[in-house]
Order: sequence, then structure tokens, then C-alpha cells
Amino acid sequence: MAVNLPSLPPLKPIAGIQVGTACAQIKQQDDLTLFELPVESHCAAVFTRNAFCAAPVIIAKQHLAAATPRFLVINSGNANAGTGEKGLRDALSCCEKVAQLTGCAVNEVLPFSTGVIGARLPVDKIRVAIPKAIATLKPDGWEKAAQAIMTTDTAPKGESIQTLIEGHPVTVTGIVKGAGMIKPDMATLLAFIATDAAVESRVLQTALTQAMENSFHRITVDGDTSTNDACVLVATGAAHNPLIDSPSHPGFNGLVTAISQVCRQLAQYIVRDAEGATKFITITVEQGAFQQECLDVAFTIAHSPLVKTAFFASDANWGRILAAIGRAGVNDLDIHAVQIYLGDVCIVEKGGVAASYTEEQGEQVMRETDIPIRVVLGRGDYQETVFTSDLSFDYVRINAEYRT
Amino acid sequence: MAVNLPSLPPLKPIAGIQVGTACAQIKQQDDLTLFELPVESHCAAVFTRNAFCAAPVIIAKQHLAAATPRFLVINSGNANAGTGEKGLRDALSCCEKVAQLTGCAVNEVLPFSTGVIGARLPVDKIRVAIPKAIATLKPDGWEKAAQAIMTTDTAPKGESIQTLIEGHPVTVTGIVKGAGMIKPDMATLLAFIATDAAVESRVLQTALTQAMENSFHRITVDGDTSTNDACVLVATGAAHNPLIDSPSHPGFNGLVTAISQVCRQLAQYIVRDAEGATKFITITVEQGAFQQECLDVAFTIAHSPLVKTAFFASDANWGRILAAIGRAGVNDLDIHAVQIYLGDVCIVEKGGVAASYTEEQGEQVMRETDIPIRVVLGRGDYQETVFTSDLSFDYVRINAEYRT
Repeated sequence: MAVNLPSLPPLKPIAGIQVGTACAQIKQQDDLTLFELPVESHCAAVFTRNAFCAAPVIIAKQHLAAATPRFLVINSGNANAGTGEKGLRDALSCCEKVAQLTGCAVNEVLPFSTGVIGARLPVDKIRVAIPKAIATLKPDGWEKAAQAIMTTDTAPKGESIQTLIEGHPVTVTGIVKGAGMIKPDMATLLAFIATDAAVESRVLQTALTQAMENSFHRITVDGDTSTNDACVLVATGAAHNPLIDSPSHPGFNGLVTAISQVCRQLAQYIVRDAEGATKFITITVEQGAFQQECLDVAFTIAHSPLVKTAFFASDANWGRILAAIGRAGVNDLDIHAVQIYLGDVCIVEKGGVAASYTEEQGEQVMRETDIPIRVVLGRGDYQETVFTSDLSFDYVRINAEYRT
Repeated sequence: MAVNLPSLPPLKPIAGIQVGTACAQIKQQDDLTLFELPVESHCAAVFTRNAFCAAPVIIAKQHLAAATPRFLVINSGNANAGTGEKGLRDALSCCEKVAQLTGCAVNEVLPFSTGVIGARLPVDKIRVAIPKAIATLKPDGWEKAAQAIMTTDTAPKGESIQTLIEGHPVTVTGIVKGAGMIKPDMATLLAFIATDAAVESRVLQTALTQAMENSFHRITVDGDTSTNDACVLVATGAAHNPLIDSPSHPGFNGLVTAISQVCRQLAQYIVRDAEGATKFITITVEQGAFQQECLDVAFTIAHSPLVKTAFFASDANWGRILAAIGRAGVNDLDIHAVQIYLGDVCIVEKGGVAASYTEEQGEQVMRETDIPIRVVLGRGDYQETVFTSDLSFDYVRINAEYRT
């Protein structure tokens, strides 16, 4: 059902990073992934802001604050969320097994889980599979990992690009899983990205934060936020570019551009593979007075079940878009200055349907699977773009039937 | 498909108010309603906060500010929203016809419209039908009006109660239409309520505002807000109770209680008749530190497509409720203090599933059509209750197929 989702491209290894996978019998296929990071690498991460964050998120944050990670251990099929104190012990137990077998410290291992909420993590199965994952560690294990971290994703998702930073070839490779901004019981978005660029640790976190802004923070399927969301960015330094040690360093912008490009692709792949999606919708809000009001308008449209069902029906139902803009909380909005475009077709202006608009024009745009909506607020210079999917029978089916 | 929606009870007339209906050929049945209000009555109203409010809302606000209404003219089948300057002239033209035939001033007529957004109002048809509606004016026309204001409602909705205010029998009667908090192209909630209580005009507005708080402002189907929502409260004074001229008057609380009771029933009827609804869900959030955080948690649960699809599936999927609470934006939420109940069954406590909980207990509650969720935040004394419906295949079908 994915909407124009390209098949997984070849994922370029990042020198020094090895990836292994194994089947821990939580699912019928590989469900355990292990990343080994070189000792000289740095690691930045962004985690869910959900107050009910999962046990592995809590442990990963603690370990990241205490040490530089040497291993990431990821299971799919079970989110280890809503599991209380036992869940924390279980996540730690997975880290201990990796540490014991590899000789690193326990807090040099970061745990990640994705899958059903509320079920106890099958620690014994995972501990048995960890040596198998270690045995398969290799530089080009990224594609297998993209497969092993999936839950209800219909296809593996990854991206790899190369760029030049101050004359040095630098690679950025990332994989992601998630088929909704959240499905709390398939607790959702995990992204693992690595680069061989040489970057100082704090600068790496700044780069990740900036890259998130126009990628993972600009997509929505159902407006929910997972208990398990995590995005990790590793930099190994193997590219031997001059160390990027501050945001004003000449290599910084190129680095952020490269990471952003990977994040943006990965984020859009998630929307293309969203649960039940039949349309990929790009919502751009222009001429806002502030950044936030552009985002408010874009997300209000993106979250409206009525807009989403109209797109599912390929119905150019501009009244629903107009009503969503009207309730987005923009202060003193002059509705006569607002214009709404579907593709290149102006459908609303001067407070009502555009004089030039015909239903045929709208229908033609709606027949596509990739549909751009453009809203012109006519009150400033800010602009934001958000990506979303439609609301289909299959979305209801997938989420109604998941546990039954 | 309505969920335990009682059939329309007998609606008691309000002395001095007459109600007429007619078919203006917008639909195949009565689609035009006229209320005649006695000259001594007062009128309070609350309108949608959507910036793209419909033409009749703009005109009704202007007329209400300028004069005391003598007539309300309501059409269903066409919302006259997103219609720009022409829409304003059309709404005014309906008022002019009523004024011309009855001898009142144009600004003593309030117009209301509900139905498809963006189509030009068929003014000629309405103007032809207005004399017919006038000819049918009678005190006991409320039931017919409840039918004539419907759009996708599956049944007419109204309520009538009698109470004593300072020893005087007082009646409150109301009708409402709406099958979603909004369907922007069946632009939605209209409520007309009247009482024979003697109330000063500003106090009536205060009473309405208070009554809205625990009724129409506590329901949601899809989180949208219509371009046409309006709630009107008329007081005729025919009950001859001592004039309620301030909120500290001894009769005020009794009046608010009676109006609230009618509003609360009407609001809940809307949720019971929500598009595609198979469940009626009552969400109570207790022990909040502030009123707003109780509402934020309740509405975050109520709007979550994942919670709503789980209810459609009769699946006691507590992980989705937990995740919704976690992302509701409550500052410093101690997840170990949070408890979640389905009916009387405690399903979550101490950050995870309750030790005593069994799936059988959850399934038993979920088999009902009326389901209470109770969330205990454990951080204060505030409490709020919100009513919502589930998200079903039929919701998608109704909203995807509406224009096709």
C-alpha cells in the first residue's frame, strides 16, 4: 500500500561501523539488530517527549549521559513500554549481555525497542540471540538492519548520500522504521544515521537538532507521539575532514545539509509507508507572520480527519481545508487575504471559491497520488512545509484489528 | 447507527414562541424553519470561533448587536459558507423577505444555515418558501423544526424540562442538529433553546456561556470546529418569575442548572448520533493540578485516532490511552501516580499495567456501547469530563463518499 516508496537503495557502509542482525524469535524473521561503533566515534540522539517514555528510552538517555556508546542493541516486535520497573531491568539486562560478550562497559550500550506496548520484553530470547548478532557484525549490514527493525512497515527504508566537506568525501547513511507518527502499540519511529565526518560531540547534537527540524518534526500520520521514538546520529571521524568543532566552522553547513537530506528522505519514506496510505500530501503554508502560525495551520490541515478522508476519496473538498485553516488559532486572520492552491490550481481566494476554479481542475489534481496543497496567508514572510497521508478504510482496519 | 439515542421526547412549547417549517426544495423534505419570538423576549447567542465563519454567522452577529431579534430563519442543506460577498447578500436577502412579510425590521431577523460549504445559497427557493413557513407558525412546532434542521443526523434531537424558579414553574426547551463536532461541508452544530423565564438580557448571555461550558464545549467527534456553529437561547419572561437581573439573583443558579441540563442532553445526543459512531465514550480526568490540564488530557485521548479505532474494535488497548496521556503536554507528569480505569476496572497504575488486571476484565467493559474511561492524574483537585465517539469504517465512508 506504500505511496511511491522507492525500493531500498544500496546503503554505503560507514568506515568503522559494523552491523549485525539475528532472530530472537519475537518474530518469525530477524528482529534483533546490533551496531558496533568505533571507539573514536561520537553519538548524538533525540528521544520522544512522551511522558510515558519506554524503558529503553530511559536507559539509553542515562547511558548516553554517562559514556560514549560502543554498541546499539535494537529489538523489534516488543516496545518494552508501559512495563514499569521490570521493563527497566529488562532493558538493562540486554545491555549487560552485550557488555559481557564484547568487553565494553554496560553504560556503553544503548538499548532500543519497538513493537507492542505493555508486554514484558522476552529478555531470555534476546540474550540468546545477542551472540548470533555479534557473529554477523560486518560493515555492510545496513540493509539487513533496515529489514530487522521493521514492525508494520511494508518495506525497509534507508538512504545513503555522499558529499564533500572541505574537499573530503563524506558519507551519510541512515535507516528508519515507522508506519505512522505513532502507533502506540507498535511504538514507532526509530532512526539510525551515521557519518564518517569528523565532528565534535556537541556540534553533532546541534547538527542533528537542526536536521530534525525539517524532516522528522515535519511529518504526521495521525498526530500521535510514540512512547519509543528515537533518532541516533553517529559520527566516526574516518573521513579525516578538518574537525568540525563549532557551528561556525566552515564544514558545519555542508554537514547539516547532508544529514538533513538523509533525514528528510527517511521522514518522507515513513509517510509514504503510513498505515493505509493511498496519498502522499505535501502541505506548504506561505506568507505567515511567524514560523509557528505556519506550522499550526499546516498541522491543523494535516490532522483533520475530514481533510484526510476527502483526500482518500480523491475529492477536492476545499471547504474542509478552509475550515481547518479557520480554526488553526491564527490571530486576526484576514480571510480575504488567504489563498489555497491544490497543485497549481487556485481553489480559494477572497474568502470563497476562486472565480476561475472548476471542479474538473480539482479532480485532475486529486487523481494523482502525490498531492501538494499550498496555503498563502498573505501576512508575512515565513513558510513551512509538512508531509502527511490520507485516512483510509485500511487505516481503520489496521488499527482496529491489530490486536484482534 | 446512533448509540443509545433516545427518540425525540415531547417538546413543551414556550409561551409566546411560534415555530413554522416548510420545504424550500433544497432537500426533499422540510428544510426551512422559522422561529417567531415575542417582542418582550431577550436573546443570547454563542457562535463558532472559526475565522472562516459563514455568511449567516456574520449577519446574525451584526443583527444581534443592533436589535432584539423577532425572527430566526434557518435553512438546512446549504451552509452559505466560503461564499464571500455574495453569501452575505444572500443571507441578508432571506432576512429581508421575512421582514417584508411580517413588518419587522431587517435587523430583527437572524439567519442560520447548515449544509454543504461553498455552494451558493438558493435564495429564490428560500424566499418562495418563507411565506409557507410563516403560514405554519404555531407554539408546538418544535418537533417539526428538530426534523427540518437536520443534515446527516440520523434522528431529530431535542429536550424539554420544567423546573421551579422562586416558586414559578419555568420551562426550558431546546433542539439541536449536528452529527460531528464539525463536518465542514455539512457545517454543523446548530442549537435553539428557549425558556419562559424572566431574565435580563446580559444575564441571559452569562447563563448561556456557563451552560455551554459543561455541554457543547465538552464534546468532540473529530476535533474540528465548524464554520457555522451557533447556539441561541431565548427567554420570553412569560413565566413571570421575579426578573433575574444579575448572576447573584436567587433565581440565577436554578436557571443555569435547568439550561445546563438541556444543553448537556443535547450535546450528548450529538455524540450519540456522531457519524459512524458505534460507541459513546465518557472520558473523566480527575485529580488534575489545573482545569486546563484535565481538558488537555481528556481531549488528547478523545481525538486520538488510535484510541478511537481501538474502541471501534472493542479492544481494551490501554497502551494507546497511556500514550495519549503521555503526549498531552502536562508539565512534570509523574507517570507512577497516574491510574487509568475502564469502567470500574483499574487497567494502568505505577507506570504500567495494573497487577490485578486481566484481559477478560477489559473485554467485558469494551463489549458495552456506553463506555466510561477514568484517568486519575494524582496531582490536584480539578476534574473535567468530555464525551466522544469511536472512529469506524462508517466514519471514513460517510466522509469520503459524501460528495461522490
